[in-house]
Amino acid sequence: MDRDAVLLTPGPLTTTLRTKLAMLRDWGSWDADFNELTAEVRRQLLAIAHAQDSHVVVPLQGSGTFSVEAAVATLVPRDGHLLVLDNGAYCKRLGRLATLMGRRTTIVARPEDEPVSADELDARLRGDTSITHVGLIHCETGTGVLNPLRAVSEVCARHGKGLIVDAMSSFGALPIDARELRFDALVAASGKCLEGVPGMGFVLIRKEVLDACAGNSQSLAMDLHDQHAYMERTGQWRFTPPTHVVAALAEAIRQFNEEGGQPARLARYADNCRVLIDGMAQLGLQPFLNPAWQAPIIVTFHAPAHPSYDFQTFYLAVKRRGFILYPGKLTQLDTFRVGCIGAIGRNEITQAVNAVADALREMGITNR
Amino acid sequence: MDRDAVLLTPGPLTTTLRTKLAMLRDWGSWDADFNELTAEVRRQLLAIAHAQDSHVVVPLQGSGTFSVEAAVATLVPRDGHLLVLDNGAYCKRLGRLATLMGRRTTIVARPEDEPVSADELDARLRGDTSITHVGLIHCETGTGVLNPLRAVSEVCARHGKGLIVDAMSSFGALPIDARELRFDALVAASGKCLEGVPGMGFVLIRKEVLDACAGNSQSLAMDLHDQHAYMERTGQWRFTPPTHVVAALAEAIRQFNEEGGQPARLARYADNCRVLIDGMAQLGLQPFLNPAWQAPIIVTFHAPAHPSYDFQTFYLAVKRRGFILYPGKLTQLDTFRVGCIGAIGRNEITQAVNAVADALREMGITNR
Repeated sequence: MDRDAVLLTPGPLTTTLRTKLAMLRDWGSWDADFNELTAEVRRQLLAIAHAQDSHVVVPLQGSGTFSVEAAVATLVPRDGHLLVLDNGAYCKRLGRLATLMGRRTTIVARPEDEPVSADELDARLRGDTSITHVGLIHCETGTGVLNPLRAVSEVCARHGKGLIVDAMSSFGALPIDARELRFDALVAASGKCLEGVPGMGFVLIRKEVLDACAGNSQSLAMDLHDQHAYMERTGQWRFTPPTHVVAALAEAIRQFNEEGGQPARLARYADNCRVLIDGMAQLGLQPFLNPAWQAPIIVTFHAPAHPSYDFQTFYLAVKRRGFILYPGKLTQLDTFRVGCIGAIGRNEITQAVNAVADALREMGITNR
Repeated sequence: MDRDAVLLTPGPLTTTLRTKLAMLRDWGSWDADFNELTAEVRRQLLAIAHAQDSHVVVPLQGSGTFSVEAAVATLVPRDGHLLVLDNGAYCKRLGRLATLMGRRTTIVARPEDEPVSADELDARLRGDTSITHVGLIHCETGTGVLNPLRAVSEVCARHGKGLIVDAMSSFGALPIDARELRFDALVAASGKCLEGVPGMGFVLIRKEVLDACAGNSQSLAMDLHDQHAYMERTGQWRFTPPTHVVAALAEAIRQFNEEGGQPARLARYADNCRVLIDGMAQLGLQPFLNPAWQAPIIVTFHAPAHPSYDFQTFYLAVKRRGFILYPGKLTQLDTFRVGCIGAIGRNEITQAVNAVADALREMGITNR
């Protein structure tokens, strides 16, 4: 039996066959046909965030983290000062890459099971006027917690600070409307809620700050200002684009629009999340987060408090049944994670819950 | 009619259907099956350069240029000094990215129609002992010229300097044997002579220098030492890998081995190159380079000296006939380029020459 497993992981995730079939063609990276594909993707990405008037979008080769690093390198001047609101692993990564590239960085740490605080940000910005930029992870994938993007954006706007949003695992699913929300940069990637394959990221950059970004980046490959200028001039990527990944993303976005865009995607993921949490509750498995903070993207569950449990055995038992889980990312607690995103619906989630039940039974773990 | 065009471009290039079909599966990036795929690709890449004993290989997300930048960032210490042997566009890019990241950089320029000189390098290294590393493009894709890798390597070894080789468009086709050739780093990518799809690069790093690379990189995403350490510890990529691109590369390498490895690939490309140059000569189209310097990778041709010629019209006329050419990259001369690489043989090259003949006839350009 060689049926593909369903990926319950927060990207790479399960994509449709139609998206994958779009990769069965080789494109000349200099050719007008491919330039039009790039242009189509860029138009659609701006439209998803209602950002056509306010922002440009710059695609970048590599994983999402490459685009996050590029956003910091391009947006934050060399003598700038980035404040990172930290409540998880991806926040810490943002702080680390900013520090490493030599930008002055201040980390404001919060517990991992709570959203970051816009009020605390307000106090920090009042207390330290040297801060030029604020970095926020919209949905912290390390736990699944939803951070208060709107409130943070309002605080940044009030203080005149640039906001850099890592919307990696929220873009396309959670509402982000650039007409009502001020941000200088917003980063996401092909292989998340747009349900493309991994291999490229993209950054929305506010037009008003774009010119001032010239010369900030110490990295040639990650200079989004240079990438944008070249793309506007030629229609092409500066360096070899991942042509097949771009074609898959274009096809994935067409399906995103056919499904009904962001509201429809959110509805499907929210349904997946509800079915998952309800089903797991039946098995005695409790989510780590307060439901109020839970984004419908990825759910962290407490591991069963049973002497026969270990994650590796559990993972393999569920995998044999056709589902790929994700390990927990908490250091203090034994957890595992289950993604709600990808080209899957309540059928796949229900089957996954049943597979988890069967796996636990096989391991001799029951809660009754 | 919707038959795919043949790409006569130096990557992305035409790949086999079998390679593309390998992308019709979604992989969990944390899963053991995908880790084994990554391990297989890494083993094979080392074997192609006979570098199992001497080097490690570190794959990296992004285009080949990302890997070149990562090699410089990781190998050259912050107080190091890189000498770049420059005879073309990709050499200049190497110099630019090293300068931008703050490494002291010296450019030794040569004419674009000649190889760089190992003797000149020798003199430069004797004259400036502050130089720690030398950067060389093996095959300068801007023109197609083959640079003297062996002689440059010997000079670097004699002076005890680290050699960083951009073998982007030669790896897999031209012989590179780490048992007889000393280099600290050698960079290539998925979508070139291995005939995978674009989206990842890789760097062979000499084991003896690996430990000293810790902490050199100011970029988190491009830190090859960190990427390597993590991969050795976990079997996984640090950040989301381009899973479908990795799967395509694994499948492409299997076909590379079935074909007979590097010698067979070189023989096919050399045959492509001969058929191309001979056929174009029949049309009165002359190569830009002295045959002695011509690598069988990409050929630069002088544009026809005819008032009716312009590249865009010519390009479209050839494209309508099913072949994608590449523009020239010389600023002083009107040229165009034709790649000899990809999953194509003398049939496709002959058809391409015929298409060029028909296109020129249509444009009213004949040399008789």
